[in-house]
Amino acid sequence: MTHLAIIGGSDAGISAALRARELDPATEVTVVVADQYPNFSICGIPYYFTGEVQPWQSLAHRTIADLEATGMTLRLNTLATSIDVSHRRIEVRTPAGATEQIPYDELIVGTGALPSHAGIAGADQLAASDGVHVIHTMGDMFALDRDLEQRQPRSAIIVGAGYVGLEMAEAFTARGMSVTQLQRGPQVLSTLDPQLGALIRDELTTHGVTVITETTVNSIAKSARGLTVTSTHADEQYTHTADLVLVVVGVRPNTELLQRAGASLGAGRAVAVDERMHTGLPHIWAAGDGVITHHRLLGPTYLPLGTTSHKQGRIAGENAIGGDRRFHGSVGTQVVKVFDLVAARTGLRNQEALTAGYAPTTASTTTDDHKRYYPGAHPIHLRITGDTRDGRLLGAQLVGWRSTNIAKRVDTYATALHCGLTIAQLNDLDLSYTPPLGSPWDPVQVAAQTWETMQRTTPGPV
Amino acid sequence: MTHLAIIGGSDAGISAALRARELDPATEVTVVVADQYPNFSICGIPYYFTGEVQPWQSLAHRTIADLEATGMTLRLNTLATSIDVSHRRIEVRTPAGATEQIPYDELIVGTGALPSHAGIAGADQLAASDGVHVIHTMGDMFALDRDLEQRQPRSAIIVGAGYVGLEMAEAFTARGMSVTQLQRGPQVLSTLDPQLGALIRDELTTHGVTVITETTVNSIAKSARGLTVTSTHADEQYTHTADLVLVVVGVRPNTELLQRAGASLGAGRAVAVDERMHTGLPHIWAAGDGVITHHRLLGPTYLPLGTTSHKQGRIAGENAIGGDRRFHGSVGTQVVKVFDLVAARTGLRNQEALTAGYAPTTASTTTDDHKRYYPGAHPIHLRITGDTRDGRLLGAQLVGWRSTNIAKRVDTYATALHCGLTIAQLNDLDLSYTPPLGSPWDPVQVAAQTWETMQRTTPGPV
Repeated sequence: MTHLAIIGGSDAGISAALRARELDPATEVTVVVADQYPNFSICGIPYYFTGEVQPWQSLAHRTIADLEATGMTLRLNTLATSIDVSHRRIEVRTPAGATEQIPYDELIVGTGALPSHAGIAGADQLAASDGVHVIHTMGDMFALDRDLEQRQPRSAIIVGAGYVGLEMAEAFTARGMSVTQLQRGPQVLSTLDPQLGALIRDELTTHGVTVITETTVNSIAKSARGLTVTSTHADEQYTHTADLVLVVVGVRPNTELLQRAGASLGAGRAVAVDERMHTGLPHIWAAGDGVITHHRLLGPTYLPLGTTSHKQGRIAGENAIGGDRRFHGSVGTQVVKVFDLVAARTGLRNQEALTAGYAPTTASTTTDDHKRYYPGAHPIHLRITGDTRDGRLLGAQLVGWRSTNIAKRVDTYATALHCGLTIAQLNDLDLSYTPPLGSPWDPVQVAAQTWETMQRTTPGPV
Repeated sequence: MTHLAIIGGSDAGISAALRARELDPATEVTVVVADQYPNFSICGIPYYFTGEVQPWQSLAHRTIADLEATGMTLRLNTLATSIDVSHRRIEVRTPAGATEQIPYDELIVGTGALPSHAGIAGADQLAASDGVHVIHTMGDMFALDRDLEQRQPRSAIIVGAGYVGLEMAEAFTARGMSVTQLQRGPQVLSTLDPQLGALIRDELTTHGVTVITETTVNSIAKSARGLTVTSTHADEQYTHTADLVLVVVGVRPNTELLQRAGASLGAGRAVAVDERMHTGLPHIWAAGDGVITHHRLLGPTYLPLGTTSHKQGRIAGENAIGGDRRFHGSVGTQVVKVFDLVAARTGLRNQEALTAGYAPTTASTTTDDHKRYYPGAHPIHLRITGDTRDGRLLGAQLVGWRSTNIAKRVDTYATALHCGLTIAQLNDLDLSYTPPLGSPWDPVQVAAQTWETMQRTTPGPV
């Protein structure tokens, strides 16, 4: 009987455990979880703070009882401290503080990522008890919740305007707080082109969020008036003061355990794995936000996403018990709801494609989500990128009102990218149509036709 | 200078005209249109009757002025009566009743389909003025509108429960009419499996529609009490009386012109065309509801759909002026909104796949459209069909609440079918996720996993 040990109780670890138990109920599976919240939907935390999700327990993808019912063993509040590769055992610190060895036949490491402080002075000295927060674990959520409850802060500064930063701007606004969002780049949601980011910025300001871009945060300090954030904007120094600060400027892979065990690092200083999610260390697999991602258009990269963690975990779980499944690669599909807008992207943007050696050009289109004569039509703003040499689709970005099915329209592009379709071939796709929900040529295809027309009339990279 | 003549002013004909003008502004394009309503969205007619679309003019995809601005010539209220293949000219009857010859270099025929009466006695003797209607042209729409206005009918019998029949049941209900829907098959919406059709039936009855299935309509007659429909159900004869009858039992290809010109007929007695939309007659192309459809899973078939007409017309328009574009095939993607539900399908159902020589099995799944913890989640009911020999995806059917993005989720399956993916490969797709709009494994993938599990635990066709 194989004993599969898994370090990490989030998306990758639990997906691996579920898959192993599903495929071979004879496999003994032990999941070592640093806290007592396995399989929680961390992506859902902002919606706890908007008040839409109650109680917090509902954020669990599955309860502990559900997980245990599959036959896996959960070791909660247990921290893995080292891996002994040659003896195939891990050392853990038990809830009681004792040290224990857990032997394994196969090991999967899904230790995820850690929030980055991006070199902001003071950010690592100040903690939740000072009113300076991150949002990365259920513990972070409880700490923020307590702070909001106890101090009733009226104002917040959010450092960062990526997915979580934008969702939390909405959450704080929903709670009646005044929000200032500081962003280093020229536009919010820098994963989209600035033309589309500008639409998101408008949505934020419409809802009362103060957005300051092109500002680099240097330090956070506690003062009598609250928390003071010092930033640089166009060579000038600025200070912003608020009752609470949330730092959401990205993550870095949590690789310590595997590095000490001898694993090599790859893109983004994440742990290198092959397409079978093997680390190269004997009997050790890894998956999720701590490892490199094979990207179908870029090769190995670092792109931590929940969907990818689920896929990689499932594959690691299958392979660790003797399977031979490959991770067939991400195309970087992402979506976020910001107040009443939804923004999505998949594949590469023009500059990214250029850097990666493609010969891209990008076309913009705005077209209604469904026939305008039927009530409730809203424009969808699309930008699609293709290779001028062979017409291959390289990427797509979409922004539209929340009812415009942006999230599932980007999936058509993601599927097309996965299959390597050209932009012309998008027009061959037999997509659904009924007037209340679409058009005979879906917006996905209208954008393709715009790109083709541009390409025909002004050939070559733009 | 090429003169391209086009017969038909609906989806196929106008798409062809637009494409030819777009690619070569030197091409002279004449479109012969039997009525004065070119480029109208016939699919939108039910929403005129619900009251959601006003005025009727907004049903035009483009106005006459828009069309003429592209440089095409519209010959409205002009009926094409014959094609002289050897002299390359068509004969038309002008609005004034005169006969005129129009010479052409290339001809595209997009004469569409005609409503079927399915052999119902009396149906072709009774007309709109008697209260017996079809819905196929703008003229039909005006006739029904007039009848509703003048007679204020309180009750309607709808013969047929396909897409248009269901949409019109909603429309009549919205107008306060009592509706009886008669359907020959065992379930409404017979293009879906009966398990899913039953959900649609429930939606109809919840909204007060009387649904009678397994009933064959034999005759329609005018009586003192209104219109009497006689039907057979389990060998018993029944009569139903109402103020108005709408017959929507499908269409048959309108092939007369091309048949007389010598074209051959193919599947469904539609005009045979190759993948370039050529009829085999010199310089004559055809597209739309009058021609066979190349289906990627079935080969040549008859499957009249607006989306296909748009695609085929665009290809015919390109090829007629010297292009070399191929119609890469339909996968039969269809979607309909019925009150607050949406139903969609793409590809083949189990029995259809079996008949076509595949070795299919079908799995059912019900899963939420987005994370249940976020407000507004609704179940999506999915049935997906795959080939047990090679795991290839063969088809998918989905039913869910109107907010569940059914229409664009079926597109992911449609794209996967187009590319020939296996069901296992659906799990490799990098689909978008954010808790308000999805799950880390999209319902599209949850269904795939269910199919795979079923296949692993009970291999072989079911």
